[in-house]
Amino acid sequence: MLKGVLKTIEKYNMLNKGDRIVAAVSGGPDSMALLHILYTLKDKYNLYIHGAHLNHMLRGEEADQDCEYVKEFCRKRSIPLSIGFEDVELMAKKQGISLEEAGRVARYKLFDDVAKEIKASKIALAHNMNDQAETVFMRIMRGTGLDGLGGIKPVRDGIFIRPLLFTLREDIEKYCREHDINPRTDSTNLEPLYLRNKLRLQLIPYIRENYSSNIESLISSMAELLREDSEFLEEHVKNIYNEICTQNEGKVSINIDSLKEQHSSVKKRIIRKAIENVKGNLNAIESKHIELLLSIIHNGMTGAAVELPGGIKGIISYKLLNIIKYTGETNIKFRYEINIPGLTRIDETGDIMEAQTEEYKLSLHNEKDYLKYFDYDKIKENLVLRTREEGDFITPAGMKGTKKLKEFFIDQKIPRDIRDRIPVVAWGKEIIWVVGYRVSENYKITKKTENVLRLEFKQCRGR
Amino acid sequence: MLKGVLKTIEKYNMLNKGDRIVAAVSGGPDSMALLHILYTLKDKYNLYIHGAHLNHMLRGEEADQDCEYVKEFCRKRSIPLSIGFEDVELMAKKQGISLEEAGRVARYKLFDDVAKEIKASKIALAHNMNDQAETVFMRIMRGTGLDGLGGIKPVRDGIFIRPLLFTLREDIEKYCREHDINPRTDSTNLEPLYLRNKLRLQLIPYIRENYSSNIESLISSMAELLREDSEFLEEHVKNIYNEICTQNEGKVSINIDSLKEQHSSVKKRIIRKAIENVKGNLNAIESKHIELLLSIIHNGMTGAAVELPGGIKGIISYKLLNIIKYTGETNIKFRYEINIPGLTRIDETGDIMEAQTEEYKLSLHNEKDYLKYFDYDKIKENLVLRTREEGDFITPAGMKGTKKLKEFFIDQKIPRDIRDRIPVVAWGKEIIWVVGYRVSENYKITKKTENVLRLEFKQCRGR
Repeated sequence: MLKGVLKTIEKYNMLNKGDRIVAAVSGGPDSMALLHILYTLKDKYNLYIHGAHLNHMLRGEEADQDCEYVKEFCRKRSIPLSIGFEDVELMAKKQGISLEEAGRVARYKLFDDVAKEIKASKIALAHNMNDQAETVFMRIMRGTGLDGLGGIKPVRDGIFIRPLLFTLREDIEKYCREHDINPRTDSTNLEPLYLRNKLRLQLIPYIRENYSSNIESLISSMAELLREDSEFLEEHVKNIYNEICTQNEGKVSINIDSLKEQHSSVKKRIIRKAIENVKGNLNAIESKHIELLLSIIHNGMTGAAVELPGGIKGIISYKLLNIIKYTGETNIKFRYEINIPGLTRIDETGDIMEAQTEEYKLSLHNEKDYLKYFDYDKIKENLVLRTREEGDFITPAGMKGTKKLKEFFIDQKIPRDIRDRIPVVAWGKEIIWVVGYRVSENYKITKKTENVLRLEFKQCRGR
Repeated sequence: MLKGVLKTIEKYNMLNKGDRIVAAVSGGPDSMALLHILYTLKDKYNLYIHGAHLNHMLRGEEADQDCEYVKEFCRKRSIPLSIGFEDVELMAKKQGISLEEAGRVARYKLFDDVAKEIKASKIALAHNMNDQAETVFMRIMRGTGLDGLGGIKPVRDGIFIRPLLFTLREDIEKYCREHDINPRTDSTNLEPLYLRNKLRLQLIPYIRENYSSNIESLISSMAELLREDSEFLEEHVKNIYNEICTQNEGKVSINIDSLKEQHSSVKKRIIRKAIENVKGNLNAIESKHIELLLSIIHNGMTGAAVELPGGIKGIISYKLLNIIKYTGETNIKFRYEINIPGLTRIDETGDIMEAQTEEYKLSLHNEKDYLKYFDYDKIKENLVLRTREEGDFITPAGMKGTKKLKEFFIDQKIPRDIRDRIPVVAWGKEIIWVVGYRVSENYKITKKTENVLRLEFKQCRGR
């Protein structure tokens, strides 16, 4: 087995001379064999090896015995060992995550802490070929794409290494017997409690018996091929992304014409990447969301917008698809000259102001909260659609005398946190329309009105 | 359901107005529903629909009843129908293939024949979402890569269309009940005889019950995503292939420097494509063969060669990796000037002639079948390494007088079919060495020899 592991180490360039390694040790066969192998390679690679063991405090005395076993193993070989304690059950409850996930988070935190402490260059993990097959199956059964099918990586971020990833569990157990290693067995592993254990104890043995006796190795080879394809695609997409996307804080703009030239596989990956860069992650983003964005690109109508989970919007603005973060907590300032007649789009929110001019007829006068008529002849210069500014004032319809806009907001009991997001139509500092709330007395239609300006504010669909 | 099928038809542009369609009808729920749906869309798309039914002659009376049922269904709706008969069991025995495979071949042949006869533009097949999930699982359990995971294509070669590929079997059965279609059930489908039926009746229901209730739809979405990735990669690789490979009959040469610049995912695909183009298919070509070729590229030694299944060789020649078809049945003619001193490589076979010149010492004289010494001073011009030509003659060592090479071969009882493949070292028409058999009397080393030419013939490893 050692030979195979060495081949893996060399193929993926896992060890360099003089590496300082944190070895994750649970006390089970995999991690004990890995520690033993690293210890065997100590001189060949001039390694400094440091164990890290987490007591999950889940199985009482049993967990303590695992801990003692690891301690004794390391003491005999003078391998320094760091032991962490975490009440994983409590942690899971507090954070509302599964026991499995909590254990994972706690372990990786320990490895990370120890690595920092000892200035480690590598963290060695004991995942084997069976883990790989289980991971890939699990992802298939939860829904996945190419990246997910690549499974567990032999090397992650140049730091996490998995020398046993191409070794079967049974070969590891044989290695333990041959080298008088008597690993501990986690009793929870033997119960089909979690999906992974169920897979390990039921589905995969069933497949091995009825379909493919070497299913783990088939899945492992498949994952390796797919990982390469996925890495290539990622690199390729990264280059195109950098060419056709521009990134500002909270916003990525994608050139629609260039995007359209791409293969749909690449198109989708670019859009996902843009969302990830704006949102910080891809949680809750599904295929249907990407399809929606592709459909508005296809239609290509300026102002068309799609709302995505996590306060993300996709908005078409002429030649650009803008992916924008739009949350109530963020103050987005904007300022646009209103096109009269025409559409004025607020890139930041996806909302649109439509302006039309008409001759005055009495029948027109059918106003709504977001549809107002003004005396066009009284408006001499270009109007601006923007968020509020210092010094803004208004003569609210039905009242006499001007008011500071701030005071108007206070009178109207408009909560402070949304004042900054209300669009206003302004002429200099004079507010003509607080959109959705009030127009100015000064520009209302009268009997003398000849020409009318019709302004309709259209909110981004889905908001 | 019709709505969903229409969406599929539109998304993949499966139907054009005026299409002439062969509809494959077995008599089972899927194909009957598909025929019914096409019939429903007849006017909308101005379709001409023609049924094609194969009697596999496997289930005696039952098969005849299926046939009658399909006939009656078509007669009622005035849909023309072609019926084929094939003794699939006999066919499988004769060709040494499985019953399943024989059935498939016979069916597709019928569809093809009918399509030609009626000048069809499309052949409609009734594969559904469950078939898709089964296919993908089957491939996973036999070992596959990205292309295999793409599963069944909604449209193949612009001709085969599968409008039901995104519909679940249960919805198809419901459609049949709702439209008073009483399809026939293939009794062999109910027995877990073949891998596919075993999957359908055991594994997938087990997964549905224990892991993912919508496993078919998850696999179908996964396959769709992967199909796009695979198509993109194929396109991308095709472009690079055309740039860095040159293709002659029975040979593809790949520029090694350009190949090395590619991502390993692309490298492997280019090599596979080259092999496919030389060999006609990729049967028996495994990952390990591609790895072997990559390893000789990595070492980059001219003359390094790898033998692949199906009479294919990969040979390094300076800056090229040549993929060559090399079979005993093919007569490969070649002709190279021998580099003295130096290596002369036969691209066609991967064999190498190594030439050295030395001062004469008695101790040198240690000849073998493929290692000979000659009097260099008697050799005035460049020697040629080649296959035999009309008019060749030799003065065989130990004999007096010249002989036609052809006669020498006859004397030596060398079978006719390998005479054309034996390399000879020649000077004009005079043969100096029939490699592996005899040297010429005229150039042997004598006591007067001052300078020696050492020729060693090295066969391509693995041959």
